[in-house]
Amino acid sequence: MLRTHTCGELRINDVNKTVTLTGWVQRLRDKGSLLWIDLRDRYGITQLFLEEGKSDAALMISARKLGREFVVRVTGIVAERLSKNDKIPTGAIEIKVDRIEVLNESKLPPFTIEDETDGGDDLRMTYRYLDLRRAPVRESLQLRHKMAQQTRIYLDSLNFIEVETPVLIKSTPEGARDFVVPSRIHHGEFYALPQSPQTFKQLLMVSGFDRYYQIVKCFRDEDLRADRQPEFTQIDCEMAFITQEDILSTFEGLVKHLFKSVKGIDIPPLPHMTYSDAMKFYGSDKPDTRFDMKFVELNDVIKGKGFQVFDGAELVVGISASGCAEYTRKQLDELTEFVKRPQIGAKGLVYIQCKADGSFKSSVDKFYSADDLKRVAEKMNAQPGDLVLILSGETNATRKQLNELRLLMGEKLGLRDKNKFSALWVLDFPLLEWNEETKRYHAMHHPFTSPKREDLSLLDTDPGKVRANAYDMVINGTEVGGGSIRIHDRPTQQLMFSKLGFTEEEAKKQFGFLMEAFEFGAPPHGGIAFGFDRLCSLFGGADSIRDFIAFPKNNAGRDMMIDTPSTISEEQLKELGIQVRP
Amino acid sequence: MLRTHTCGELRINDVNKTVTLTGWVQRLRDKGSLLWIDLRDRYGITQLFLEEGKSDAALMISARKLGREFVVRVTGIVAERLSKNDKIPTGAIEIKVDRIEVLNESKLPPFTIEDETDGGDDLRMTYRYLDLRRAPVRESLQLRHKMAQQTRIYLDSLNFIEVETPVLIKSTPEGARDFVVPSRIHHGEFYALPQSPQTFKQLLMVSGFDRYYQIVKCFRDEDLRADRQPEFTQIDCEMAFITQEDILSTFEGLVKHLFKSVKGIDIPPLPHMTYSDAMKFYGSDKPDTRFDMKFVELNDVIKGKGFQVFDGAELVVGISASGCAEYTRKQLDELTEFVKRPQIGAKGLVYIQCKADGSFKSSVDKFYSADDLKRVAEKMNAQPGDLVLILSGETNATRKQLNELRLLMGEKLGLRDKNKFSALWVLDFPLLEWNEETKRYHAMHHPFTSPKREDLSLLDTDPGKVRANAYDMVINGTEVGGGSIRIHDRPTQQLMFSKLGFTEEEAKKQFGFLMEAFEFGAPPHGGIAFGFDRLCSLFGGADSIRDFIAFPKNNAGRDMMIDTPSTISEEQLKELGIQVRP
Repeated sequence: MLRTHTCGELRINDVNKTVTLTGWVQRLRDKGSLLWIDLRDRYGITQLFLEEGKSDAALMISARKLGREFVVRVTGIVAERLSKNDKIPTGAIEIKVDRIEVLNESKLPPFTIEDETDGGDDLRMTYRYLDLRRAPVRESLQLRHKMAQQTRIYLDSLNFIEVETPVLIKSTPEGARDFVVPSRIHHGEFYALPQSPQTFKQLLMVSGFDRYYQIVKCFRDEDLRADRQPEFTQIDCEMAFITQEDILSTFEGLVKHLFKSVKGIDIPPLPHMTYSDAMKFYGSDKPDTRFDMKFVELNDVIKGKGFQVFDGAELVVGISASGCAEYTRKQLDELTEFVKRPQIGAKGLVYIQCKADGSFKSSVDKFYSADDLKRVAEKMNAQPGDLVLILSGETNATRKQLNELRLLMGEKLGLRDKNKFSALWVLDFPLLEWNEETKRYHAMHHPFTSPKREDLSLLDTDPGKVRANAYDMVINGTEVGGGSIRIHDRPTQQLMFSKLGFTEEEAKKQFGFLMEAFEFGAPPHGGIAFGFDRLCSLFGGADSIRDFIAFPKNNAGRDMMIDTPSTISEEQLKELGIQVRP
Repeated sequence: MLRTHTCGELRINDVNKTVTLTGWVQRLRDKGSLLWIDLRDRYGITQLFLEEGKSDAALMISARKLGREFVVRVTGIVAERLSKNDKIPTGAIEIKVDRIEVLNESKLPPFTIEDETDGGDDLRMTYRYLDLRRAPVRESLQLRHKMAQQTRIYLDSLNFIEVETPVLIKSTPEGARDFVVPSRIHHGEFYALPQSPQTFKQLLMVSGFDRYYQIVKCFRDEDLRADRQPEFTQIDCEMAFITQEDILSTFEGLVKHLFKSVKGIDIPPLPHMTYSDAMKFYGSDKPDTRFDMKFVELNDVIKGKGFQVFDGAELVVGISASGCAEYTRKQLDELTEFVKRPQIGAKGLVYIQCKADGSFKSSVDKFYSADDLKRVAEKMNAQPGDLVLILSGETNATRKQLNELRLLMGEKLGLRDKNKFSALWVLDFPLLEWNEETKRYHAMHHPFTSPKREDLSLLDTDPGKVRANAYDMVINGTEVGGGSIRIHDRPTQQLMFSKLGFTEEEAKKQFGFLMEAFEFGAPPHGGIAFGFDRLCSLFGGADSIRDFIAFPKNNAGRDMMIDTPSTISEEQLKELGIQVRP
């Protein structure tokens, strides 16, 4: 090694050692006769020290010429600092420099390499290799590394086998769009990149692998919304000879292990919540349970008082925001504006202020007496000082609107602390989901998910009511993982494909191999996949997954640094047997 | 879990326990009143036992109906076997069955699920999920899992950070062909799949990540030779602030760790051999050093005796095959035929039989006296009983031919034992390689490899002579890994591109980001990549990598099981802005 030590390891008991360090010049402080340099590497920062008169004159001159981000190799003696810095682990010492070798110079970086940088998103992405030098970004990727390590340690300990599944697979129109790869050898034919290794992991169960995992890249050619990446990473797992409870306890164990080993946090056992309860009490299948503020349905206490909006509504439902009774007119108007934004789509908002003196003030005072309001407040379990917020309308839409309002109020009340974690399982998802565009049912999870046996009879009469053996893990209002117990017999799988509108021919062309595999002794099996990028950002307390990916693409799917996608030569296209459409 | 135990864990001290097992019916032996069933899962085989009269009559009937590969769940009591089987860990016990539940039936598999199968390659690949049930294939993938685990344990312990690099990158014409991925959002533009994460790992060094690794899928669209896969896996590593020696010792450590932890073998320190010595003594840059049989150059003792073939040859070189002096005429003719095969291309083969009585017999007796032959034998250090085999011609071609002959003789003499391992480093590779087709120099390793400083002056005068800071690890005649110390400054990188025939514009378009990165404080760095599939097959003692990949493609790049590549819809093509050429 060109160094004897890293910039993060020297301590007071190393004093008087002769050491050689390598790293980047973070900062240079020149106080006339005294010169300090902060030398940085991945492991930390060590202070270098030179003194006019004591240090060699030529050395002083060359030290003064060092610019930010120069790469140097420095030899010197470890000395105790006069004024110690207890903010960094090396803060008790500095290096009295004897020799500086410039390993490489640096132009002035286009943005500052500091925790808070002045670089905008595009600039940071174009020079991602410089952005990655910043401590917060490096630490995010170190966290990711640790998450991957600990995931493997846990799964290895439970006899999971890591198996690599292929990246060049087959295009299947179900679900999101595939990225495709033209075959040069077979003109007119294409591979596709996997949206997940779903069928392969199921086949591994048919093969008797019993417990499989993989931390694996997946691909989805979707119109990119904020914080979606065309390539993303999953912790992908599957188990055979299990019940749903086995999957839930095994992967609850994984997440507990990660919290403990990576963050030193013991999280409580994960509550189980049905999808239908999640929708009823939170208006979302990924409830943020860091705070309570559950929905209370008010139809029975609020209808029939002549207020047409409520009387004509399918559902009247409220939340109670603790300590917000004294919201000003302006604040209340802002809440109304919020729910009326087109993305949310409520027609209006009714509020009841539960005053400290026990009185009530509401936006519907002319329809409701003080007693009426009191009855509502009681039903809401609202205390003096609370603010009750009520929406109404078609059930599903109203729940979704109130979910947004609940999250906003949680935010306003500081109840969504990024360093607090609340995890749960959401269970019993619907098997099918009606799609207004295509006018048919789609698989809510995917077509391999098994229906609950007791709901099978509804498949013909009321398909939307059939529940699946499907589950999501939700942390802080984010779905971090989801999975299901799979179908493992051909007749059920065939039935499922036909309910999803596949012709027999289509099903056979795309998934014939899987259905055939089910005829050769397929065991009961199920699994789960975690969104690894998202899980890392959640652990890192960040909103965006961007800094937990070393080289992310922007919202147009472009890598700004290497400038791709890009054109390829006509010769290359010819070889592949394709051409760009005019 | 549907089971209380696996099929691999019950022992004599479990006798009398009531247990539930799950697995596949491997075999059924029906001896009239007695019935044995071998139940198989990933963990082993357990014998089930039923007895007419003692077992329930209905149970006997249903047990007799079980077919091979049926999936069952069995409950019973562990009992000591009368005749124990010491070949399997569960051989001391059997299960007296009380209950059998068929979890799934199985059609008759298209080939037998045994260690030696009757299935041909195509059939095995079409039903890969059944092939994967066979113990040798499953064990190969378990070995791979262990190799990956131990690789990570070793590198994690040395502070390497695992960083995922992107899969959707940019096409670069240097090297093999890229697979490309049309962009739907940017019509006419393409991503490419990485042949290696080379530039990204170098950028991570520029970013200060210091030590990087990744077990990563790479892609190469080459005409597939036997045992090449379009997608393959590398252990990819890079280190900063190092010398070549640091890389060699770190990764010698990795391979030692793998041998020790996976196979329980202590391998000796790896010898270092220069490329030029490897070519001179073995005729190959990947010498199989499990056996000696080194080349001996004979120009000085064999020329000038009137044998035109040798006198006119640039090089006359031989090997001595121990104990082969008594090869018959037929055997000697076969060796001659072997070297004259068009793939090898020698014009002929000269032999000298060193008889046990001290006499010599050669195929060139009319040109060489007994004394002449004795002198050759002495130079060869051939002993009585040995067979000297001599080739001649242009130096490089002759060495390559003799390499093939040496390997064949090693094979014949049983010196290439798959359970013996001989590893070494080959160093000082040439930087450039002349390509007859393109009539220009190509990078032997890749364009980012640094030339040896002391050879830099040859770059203009004799480019083929410039040596690189490049190294390969070779085990048993197979290159398992290779790497180099990289260029880390813009001027040298630019010089290199220009020597490789890149115009300035081309270099900038393809690698501008890397050259720019070198101007912002790039540290000295270098790295290595191991071919993981090959390394696993070597550890597994197999010739082919096929069974160390769960779902491999055939030699035409086709996945026989899922049947891909395949056509995609016109609609999909339209969306991607491409069309298939007529």
